[in-house]
Amino acid sequence: MVRIVCAGLGPGDPELISVKSDRAIRRASQVAYFRKRGRTGQARTIVEGMLAAGATEYAMEYPVTTELPFDSPAYAALLAAFYDDWANRLAAMSGEVVVLCEGDPFFYGSFMHLYVRLLGRAEIEVIPGITGMTGCWNVAGQPFTWGDDVTTVLMGTLDEAKLVRHMREADALAIMKTGRNLPRVRRALAAAGRLEDAWLVERGTMPGQRIARLAEVDDAACPYFAIVLVHGRGRRPEAVE
Amino acid sequence: MVRIVCAGLGPGDPELISVKSDRAIRRASQVAYFRKRGRTGQARTIVEGMLAAGATEYAMEYPVTTELPFDSPAYAALLAAFYDDWANRLAAMSGEVVVLCEGDPFFYGSFMHLYVRLLGRAEIEVIPGITGMTGCWNVAGQPFTWGDDVTTVLMGTLDEAKLVRHMREADALAIMKTGRNLPRVRRALAAAGRLEDAWLVERGTMPGQRIARLAEVDDAACPYFAIVLVHGRGRRPEAVE
Repeated sequence: MVRIVCAGLGPGDPELISVKSDRAIRRASQVAYFRKRGRTGQARTIVEGMLAAGATEYAMEYPVTTELPFDSPAYAALLAAFYDDWANRLAAMSGEVVVLCEGDPFFYGSFMHLYVRLLGRAEIEVIPGITGMTGCWNVAGQPFTWGDDVTTVLMGTLDEAKLVRHMREADALAIMKTGRNLPRVRRALAAAGRLEDAWLVERGTMPGQRIARLAEVDDAACPYFAIVLVHGRGRRPEAVE
Repeated sequence: MVRIVCAGLGPGDPELISVKSDRAIRRASQVAYFRKRGRTGQARTIVEGMLAAGATEYAMEYPVTTELPFDSPAYAALLAAFYDDWANRLAAMSGEVVVLCEGDPFFYGSFMHLYVRLLGRAEIEVIPGITGMTGCWNVAGQPFTWGDDVTTVLMGTLDEAKLVRHMREADALAIMKTGRNLPRVRRALAAAGRLEDAWLVERGTMPGQRIARLAEVDDAACPYFAIVLVHGRGRRPEAVE
């Protein structure tokens, strides 16, 4: 039975990979990673210079990314076939294969679709990673949550009314999958009275990192993996009333 | 001006410390960490065997932990004086001091209270870490969030009505600061119809780790740092409708 080690890579800076993932990656003789067709891919970019000489690489190229609506049956069918195919290929391999995953593998990660398909067909170990949002709120340079703040993580793909409701109810907010959804995210934040406190972090912890007040950023200039943050302002010891 | 490096330690397993934090800890000549009076402390326990011979250690002992209500003016005043005092002591040091922080320093961490007091008085670098909840959902052995799931992080110290409201609205839930609040957390999960799907993870990624269905755990047996998890069940490619 093949052994699959999913190595969480963290937010992007290779120095933020865990000691355990770092070791697994450097000793790997077989490495697999997702990427958009024709691109190097973020996961592969992060480990540049870390792979052993002669390691075999498997690029798992998404059949579709933004060409179809993510909630369409055609998109779902293509992705399901893609995950089925790679689960079958990995299950048929021998020895150990290290699958690279940006952020943490169990937090909105593509690896989960392989994981559920490989259960019982492979020995699987998942090594956690620092989530992308954690990397982003650290580079934003101020504490993210205090005391009994409520933190909510939202996807920019949600409908606007749902976004507004959650933005009103939570203290700290992290909004992922922004990109082309940024205009909706911006309107929802404004409706919830949170726009003035929102930050946009692009390529957090990576070369080309940019941090800006969302209110001052143009919608068109937002990459898909940028994260919007609104910091909590909870109870603190100094606030004696 | 002293240089303060706050090293995120992650969820507990020393192997899950980042390469960058690991290096900072091993080369440190001065190390500081929080702990309850008379205890070794979780942060210090995690780095056992990693500190350089001859490193100077500063144990920052909380003046109070659970002896007073956390929302009382007396508790707030004691903690504020404690953080003021240690911020002053650290600011007066020279060279580099590595402050150890469990989980991620900017996510509900005690270091944040030093951070805001040291701004402008020290050169500060914060190294992110894997949050405790990330470690816990990984050892729970199933993906935590899918597709456009809404994730909400709640503190067990919140009032019951607020807990119920958020538990109904979110898909995936992580509830921290459980301990003596567990009966309230349990009632709120039941009221929100989520109790049957809740897991209690104690000492996640650490020796003595325990994972159990919350519905089957006795309230009295819950340590303060146990985390309750309810997994999301979001949109997946296989669920074509």
